[in-house]
Amino acid sequence: MSHADRIARARAQMAGAGVDALLLSTGPDLPYLTGYEAMPLERLTMLVLPVAGDARLVVPRLEAPRVDNREELFEIVAWEDTEDPVALVASLVPVSTARIAIGDHTWARFVLDLQRARPDVRFSRAVAITGPLRVVKDAAEVAALRAAAVAVDAIAAEMRSRPFRGRREVDVHRELVERMLDAGHERANFAIVAAGENAASPHHDPGARVIDEGDVVLCDFGGTMHGYCSDITRMFVVGEPTQEMRDVYAVLVEAQEAAVNAATVGTPCAGVDATARRVIADAGYGEYFVHRTGHGIGAEAHEDPYVVAGNDTPLVPGHAFSVEPGIYLPGRFGFRLEDIVVATAAGPDRLNHASRDLAVVE
Amino acid sequence: MSHADRIARARAQMAGAGVDALLLSTGPDLPYLTGYEAMPLERLTMLVLPVAGDARLVVPRLEAPRVDNREELFEIVAWEDTEDPVALVASLVPVSTARIAIGDHTWARFVLDLQRARPDVRFSRAVAITGPLRVVKDAAEVAALRAAAVAVDAIAAEMRSRPFRGRREVDVHRELVERMLDAGHERANFAIVAAGENAASPHHDPGARVIDEGDVVLCDFGGTMHGYCSDITRMFVVGEPTQEMRDVYAVLVEAQEAAVNAATVGTPCAGVDATARRVIADAGYGEYFVHRTGHGIGAEAHEDPYVVAGNDTPLVPGHAFSVEPGIYLPGRFGFRLEDIVVATAAGPDRLNHASRDLAVVE
Repeated sequence: MSHADRIARARAQMAGAGVDALLLSTGPDLPYLTGYEAMPLERLTMLVLPVAGDARLVVPRLEAPRVDNREELFEIVAWEDTEDPVALVASLVPVSTARIAIGDHTWARFVLDLQRARPDVRFSRAVAITGPLRVVKDAAEVAALRAAAVAVDAIAAEMRSRPFRGRREVDVHRELVERMLDAGHERANFAIVAAGENAASPHHDPGARVIDEGDVVLCDFGGTMHGYCSDITRMFVVGEPTQEMRDVYAVLVEAQEAAVNAATVGTPCAGVDATARRVIADAGYGEYFVHRTGHGIGAEAHEDPYVVAGNDTPLVPGHAFSVEPGIYLPGRFGFRLEDIVVATAAGPDRLNHASRDLAVVE
Repeated sequence: MSHADRIARARAQMAGAGVDALLLSTGPDLPYLTGYEAMPLERLTMLVLPVAGDARLVVPRLEAPRVDNREELFEIVAWEDTEDPVALVASLVPVSTARIAIGDHTWARFVLDLQRARPDVRFSRAVAITGPLRVVKDAAEVAALRAAAVAVDAIAAEMRSRPFRGRREVDVHRELVERMLDAGHERANFAIVAAGENAASPHHDPGARVIDEGDVVLCDFGGTMHGYCSDITRMFVVGEPTQEMRDVYAVLVEAQEAAVNAATVGTPCAGVDATARRVIADAGYGEYFVHRTGHGIGAEAHEDPYVVAGNDTPLVPGHAFSVEPGIYLPGRFGFRLEDIVVATAAGPDRLNHASRDLAVVE
């Protein structure tokens, strides 16, 4: 779908929701609608998209040359460092505006300053406008997600023959980042490497811990390739795993497989979560699965739909999301296993195919 | 200054400003006050700091194990994926609260949801509380900025003997990122590499453009080392520069030198900007210097004080900022030259010492 088509669809959403103007700054909504990504800096970049009438991109003068506007989606309004961009944006929002939807990632400083500049206007979240568009991926978007998945699959496969023993978590982290960039990702978004007891901390920050014999090593990494995200988790053990490790990991593989298979069109997101949770709970590890089963993925690493209890949204073709149950034994070790899945009329389409066997590494 | 001392000072600011509670999420304020940095994800992390009474860190359960709270600065309140963190934060803000200051980088979605949850409360920007603390660097902070500057100085020096011809901008970008990480930066924040006509775009996004004979190449790079930022710009030319290039660059060197020397305690920020601008304007290039002269730097790459016309804040000892005038000739080439400077009673303390001569490279 072209950017112009996406803007037209956003406007239709706005009309339906009674939103008079959409304001987008940092975050994925702006590139989704226009192809241009705002720099996450203190100089405000903001698209002013009225429900009817011309769109304008307010951009710092020094960044105007980097805006590609070949599609003529908006008028560029460049501001000088001596000007007030909030006043400029406020002046570009039509006077009759009663309701503004503002990008979910916009910095608080700009929200508060805009509210002060337009106290007559009600502000709400842009996700109500852009969310329904972004959550269903078209064929080109699924292809981009698949290409990113293929790239990290290759890395996951290569890591099975790489040495781990004696290296620090940050060293493996760095290798994963570089491999993602080498594989064509324009950006490495994260690379969790958690060894031994650290693997029981789901969002562990890789540090100086040296990986040793007998350590479980959790590697969860992803980036952005041609605008769409990868995200994969695979598990490694240095030397022979204990029987307990094998047993716990077997439960996790079963839970993940069951949840992927449950991700059929019409199934509520919560149902996919419940499927993974049931397998783990039945094996006696329920209290150690401390997070939801997954998150949507697209231009953003985490987005709708969330695979979590309470989310009764039924899957539709084009929903893309992670399935990543985990079992974390505090102070000891932890496991997570993650693939990206797209819901299709023909059933769940798993995008990642790297071996899910526990990798025994040096 | 210890984190506890910083929190005490923040509370004194709050009392003076009539702020009942400070809410901090993503961005540099939270690590400045507590040492903990929130993950920039959809799961809310938020410090609730009442002007009096106990502080609490609301954090996703799966991230609780990564919080280092050895200093016992706050109580950890972990929330489950099935809970509503906004309702939790709202419930932890004392009932009597009339005014909340919220971190400038907090995502709009959380600001709007919190406003809805506490419609009785007035929200304002946290910069009014944390800004006066952060803007004056103590000796340890200046030492950290200096160490980061030494690290990128070494990279800038090494680049003078590196080949540029035939490489793409992104290749040099990647090299700069890797060198920053190798030099001890925990994070590379940016690495602008702009060749030829792209150097006239101050915030150019490095791309596939191949660097060729005769190209000016602008390299502006920085990262975070031990929590404090580096930021340096140096200029390269492949082969002999033209006389025009030498002339324009000489103007820039003179402007930058004059502005650094003008950065004495008591001088308004705007005066430093005016000094650089005057030299460039006098040489006839005024219209090609399209941005302010500099920005403050610390835990954040860009922060107060901004060296810009209109900012009459007089420099005080401990103000740290960039001095980075530029001359950009659209469609042809551009130059910028940047050092970090700290205002001291003994005069401007320039932290960067890498050669400022135009580097003639292969």
